[in-house]
Amino acid sequence: MLIGKSIRGDELVAANMPEIILYLPVLLALIGIAYGAYVALSIFKKSEGTAKMKEISGAIREGSDAYLSRQFRTIFIFGLVLLVAVYFFLGATVAVAFLVGAFSSGLVGYIGMYLAVRSNARAAQASLTSMQDALSVPFSAGVVTGAMVSGIGLLGVSAVFLGVYFIFGQSASALSEAGKALIGFGFGANLLALFMRVGGGIYTKAADVGADLVGKVEKGIPEDDPRNPATIADNVGDNVGDCAGMGADVFESYTVTIIATMLLGMVSFGITGALFPLLVAGGAMLLGLASSITVKVKNENEYPFDAMKRGFLISTVLQAIFFYAISMLVLNDIRAFFALTLGLVATHAIIRFTEYYTSTKEKPVQDIASAAKSGAGTNLIAGLGVGMESAVVGILAVAAAILLGFYWVGLGYFGIALVGLGMLATTAMIMAMDTFGPISDNAGGIGEMSNLAAAGRKRLDRLDAVGNTTKATTKGFAISSAAIAAVALFSTYFETTGLSSIDITIPAVFVGLLIGGAVPFIFSSLTMKAVGRAANLVVEEVRRQFKDPRIMKGTKRPDYAACVDISTKAALDSLYLPAAIVVLTPIIIGFGPTLIGAPPTVGLAALGGFLAGAILVSQLMAIFMANSGGAWDNAKKYIEEGHFGGKGSDAHKAAVVGDTVGDPFKDTSGPALNPMIKILNIVSLLVAAAVVGKGLGAI
Amino acid sequence: MLIGKSIRGDELVAANMPEIILYLPVLLALIGIAYGAYVALSIFKKSEGTAKMKEISGAIREGSDAYLSRQFRTIFIFGLVLLVAVYFFLGATVAVAFLVGAFSSGLVGYIGMYLAVRSNARAAQASLTSMQDALSVPFSAGVVTGAMVSGIGLLGVSAVFLGVYFIFGQSASALSEAGKALIGFGFGANLLALFMRVGGGIYTKAADVGADLVGKVEKGIPEDDPRNPATIADNVGDNVGDCAGMGADVFESYTVTIIATMLLGMVSFGITGALFPLLVAGGAMLLGLASSITVKVKNENEYPFDAMKRGFLISTVLQAIFFYAISMLVLNDIRAFFALTLGLVATHAIIRFTEYYTSTKEKPVQDIASAAKSGAGTNLIAGLGVGMESAVVGILAVAAAILLGFYWVGLGYFGIALVGLGMLATTAMIMAMDTFGPISDNAGGIGEMSNLAAAGRKRLDRLDAVGNTTKATTKGFAISSAAIAAVALFSTYFETTGLSSIDITIPAVFVGLLIGGAVPFIFSSLTMKAVGRAANLVVEEVRRQFKDPRIMKGTKRPDYAACVDISTKAALDSLYLPAAIVVLTPIIIGFGPTLIGAPPTVGLAALGGFLAGAILVSQLMAIFMANSGGAWDNAKKYIEEGHFGGKGSDAHKAAVVGDTVGDPFKDTSGPALNPMIKILNIVSLLVAAAVVGKGLGAI
Repeated sequence: MLIGKSIRGDELVAANMPEIILYLPVLLALIGIAYGAYVALSIFKKSEGTAKMKEISGAIREGSDAYLSRQFRTIFIFGLVLLVAVYFFLGATVAVAFLVGAFSSGLVGYIGMYLAVRSNARAAQASLTSMQDALSVPFSAGVVTGAMVSGIGLLGVSAVFLGVYFIFGQSASALSEAGKALIGFGFGANLLALFMRVGGGIYTKAADVGADLVGKVEKGIPEDDPRNPATIADNVGDNVGDCAGMGADVFESYTVTIIATMLLGMVSFGITGALFPLLVAGGAMLLGLASSITVKVKNENEYPFDAMKRGFLISTVLQAIFFYAISMLVLNDIRAFFALTLGLVATHAIIRFTEYYTSTKEKPVQDIASAAKSGAGTNLIAGLGVGMESAVVGILAVAAAILLGFYWVGLGYFGIALVGLGMLATTAMIMAMDTFGPISDNAGGIGEMSNLAAAGRKRLDRLDAVGNTTKATTKGFAISSAAIAAVALFSTYFETTGLSSIDITIPAVFVGLLIGGAVPFIFSSLTMKAVGRAANLVVEEVRRQFKDPRIMKGTKRPDYAACVDISTKAALDSLYLPAAIVVLTPIIIGFGPTLIGAPPTVGLAALGGFLAGAILVSQLMAIFMANSGGAWDNAKKYIEEGHFGGKGSDAHKAAVVGDTVGDPFKDTSGPALNPMIKILNIVSLLVAAAVVGKGLGAI
Repeated sequence: MLIGKSIRGDELVAANMPEIILYLPVLLALIGIAYGAYVALSIFKKSEGTAKMKEISGAIREGSDAYLSRQFRTIFIFGLVLLVAVYFFLGATVAVAFLVGAFSSGLVGYIGMYLAVRSNARAAQASLTSMQDALSVPFSAGVVTGAMVSGIGLLGVSAVFLGVYFIFGQSASALSEAGKALIGFGFGANLLALFMRVGGGIYTKAADVGADLVGKVEKGIPEDDPRNPATIADNVGDNVGDCAGMGADVFESYTVTIIATMLLGMVSFGITGALFPLLVAGGAMLLGLASSITVKVKNENEYPFDAMKRGFLISTVLQAIFFYAISMLVLNDIRAFFALTLGLVATHAIIRFTEYYTSTKEKPVQDIASAAKSGAGTNLIAGLGVGMESAVVGILAVAAAILLGFYWVGLGYFGIALVGLGMLATTAMIMAMDTFGPISDNAGGIGEMSNLAAAGRKRLDRLDAVGNTTKATTKGFAISSAAIAAVALFSTYFETTGLSSIDITIPAVFVGLLIGGAVPFIFSSLTMKAVGRAANLVVEEVRRQFKDPRIMKGTKRPDYAACVDISTKAALDSLYLPAAIVVLTPIIIGFGPTLIGAPPTVGLAALGGFLAGAILVSQLMAIFMANSGGAWDNAKKYIEEGHFGGKGSDAHKAAVVGDTVGDPFKDTSGPALNPMIKILNIVSLLVAAAVVGKGLGAI
């Protein structure tokens, strides 16, 4: 319907462009991937340090591999069922695209983790020479992940689009087929991301909370103490949750935003409008990767985050200039430049406000720390209050982006999608800054367990603290970009269904809205409870092992694999229900009314209300949980810096409780809402297509 | 627009009814009020016990009076500004109705508190003879509150409606004027309820948390120990928060639901449709009051809650029969009976599911208690998970009520409003069950402080525990009925504006939705932080007083008034910003787009989106917070009953942290969303009227 309805037929062969431009996105993607591979090889050349370091890193690698391969097996069964359903209802092309999407997303997550578990010991070893060297290894590994997320994402989308385009010829129906295939690709990518993000999130926090509760709280031994049987599982968690999970999550935001922009771009600009987002993404990626070279600390004492912020600023300035050039060259429309640049501004704003709410240097975190003086209860109340407030700021930022993107830019829904594309153009640098954190964290853990020299450990501690800040800010970016991606998908939903309106005064639509808002709550409830349950199992296992006195004395090596196994199993077992809910609910809402005799438009409109409710509530809850969690974490750190009695004081104990609650908030339930909201939109698009026409032919 | 557009002119004088029927609602209301006064006098005849009991009760009474009179002064200033605005923009009739609404709501709150502070010592004294006597005093006081909430509510609405009707004559424009006046009445009632609920909520938890943190946690003295300087403030809090606040809250749900049902009823049934809700409410009230006589324990050992449930069941059965009779007699339409009875069923369902999530006898609370074994963090995670899950069930209940009320009943929006009216028909009994709780709590406190004989204290302890359960369930009722009231108001909003749709694919409407969803978050954040801040002030004052060793020895009377003063001031200072937000946001959204050149319908549609977002999120958050809080409270009680180590164990300490977080959740921020959502709707109705036509003439 979308393309069939609105495409400008005379532009099907891009009249004013040489045909080579069709291949340009693929070329750009390949350059990005090649650069990533080059950086990866340069990391692998570095030393992995002592035998002890290699051994610990090996154990983490083993645990991570074991987790990921079991996770892929879990996904395989679920994915196979969906593949059959997709093939049956939507045809072979979409099924192939679905497979490509799922494979790419899994690949990106795997590469992110592969790099991370091979960089941690090297980062620890490099920390012995200088801060620049210490920074360089984890940051370079992040650059590789950034290159792969954007490069493979761009390659996959371009390949699907061009493949269909060339197989089916250059007719309007071919473009329609391409539209379908792109949505199929997005579905595959989303499915993988959902599993990786949610499974990884449950895993990492079950291990972390379990390790801390027995190790730090009951036994009083430090974090990452090699005597703690859960310490390897904890470090594995950083890799499978923060590296593989975050990589897959941003990969899907990146690809679905490009896809939504392409679909909406076709409405206004024909095939040029479909190619434009690919060119924008490709150029911005290369500029981001090039700017990453400038990330260098000026001297041993410079705060490493400042070096990253400098590099990030350079990259966005270059991208803005590029946006102007390409908007004028390809679309000859300055409004595209406005929209894309708005995305860059929004990214900076989001990073800034997230920093405000989660940094130890600002009032909110200090207030939370101060509330810990009266106990854990008041510490928690303060953190919840701060998180809720930050959610309001976050949603106002999204609201402003939508209003300006639509009304000020004046390109309709395409303008909103371009704002999202502008935000996600920063993906390469954002991923570099994000992945850097868990690798430094792992490096610190390896340093702790292998008795690394003090100078190195001090540098790694500083990097770990920076990692907490970058993780919090990039999480804000991931949430907000997921929201904009969802809004862009929502716009394509509306175009796809051909509804004249989605009217919330119709009770069915209003009820759809209510149920849509309920989904993020049940999703969060399930993930919170899964972490609680899994953490309890880890606690029991660690307590069981500690009954052997030789472990505490350090004369017997704990059974690390047992904790890895328990976390893996618990995480994967908790995946089915949330996954089933997000796939089935839109199908039930979309088809349900038809089954009891209502016209198909009722179900489609109700599904529209459903999506709006889900977007609203998941955006609020995701920011609330991420920032409450980040703020509690740093309130604890603020006290550890020596305020309000410092480490070991009553205030510190109270702050540790806040941090424990914050762990699943910020690393499981909050981030899990990103893939959830996107997959709800993608499934709804497929439902709409199936309801409106035969198969996806309606798009 | 609403009435002018749709009224059936030929029915303006109810053709098939004698004119006396116009006065019947007033008569029913007066009977209810008279019965309430009679019960009140019978309570006052009972003994207040020893001099010590009188003294303590006197101190509580003094503190409560001081709080309420300062609160009324605060409201006076704010209300005066609004009164001038209402008069200026909407005319004298609406201004008078606004005043009557505000006065009635304040009066109901005041009477509720007046009764409560005069029944607490009498209940303590009565507990010495038998369980039936112990139960009878607080429950009778509750019956009086129930009679006043429904009687005064019905009287106020009837008087405003009939007053306008007789002054302006029986024309269509007179009915339109009556419609305006009713909304003005609702606005006045809402404004008072907002202040009473939010101010009382902050007060009660500041005092409670403050008293507990120093008394129970730091000094290890029992609850309600007379040496604790905050103990009187804590008991005052029960009265100003749970009695005055809850009374005003349900009063406004009750009145605005009647008003919305009248407005929508006029559309379908003319003046008969306007009178019908008044007759339904009046009859149901008298049946509820009559059934309250059956609430008697069978013997000394019967669980008192069972006696209440029995009485409640009798009242709803009688009401269902009455609904059938009046639906056939007045409207001659069986569908009205279906809708009203659906409301009764919904009330039972809500009470049942709230009981499931908050009772010590069910799995959720026991799971939370079990999680406390691993510490406060896991206890909190478990409680948050349970609360979120319960919010999903709650919103599904509301969704079912809307779907069935609209599609199954087949009376359009009027059907939804009738479901709400059916729910609120139970108000008299619900208020009796609710108010009973804080009075028993107070009686227990007075017993503790005055060394009441053990038999009496044991009976009061049992009643207090029952009070916790009734409070949790009636809170679920208050939240859900507020949601249905808001949906009914939302329907009238749509009818009032004359918009053909509220289409969320229009970005302005979607952004309205986002901002609407943000309001409950900022509201909750402000109230949470207010409690935290105020509790800290109380903590400091109590610590200061405890520096005098004579207080701990019991040889010097603590300065109770200081804590009352601090809580009062902190609560009232925290009121302005939330109140300003709820009044101003709808005005900004409604008029804002017009100011930058958009047609008025854009602002009205955006305001519609805003209301939908606000209803969705406030319903989710209110149930989430109320049930998390209730569940933590009872998880603590479950451990105190001897499970997982019992009182004083590590699990118990962890559960106390959950209870502290739950206090503002369940008694401040959660309930505060009830008046918030209704006032947002009422203000939007007034904005719509002002935008659509000259003043309110458009309605």
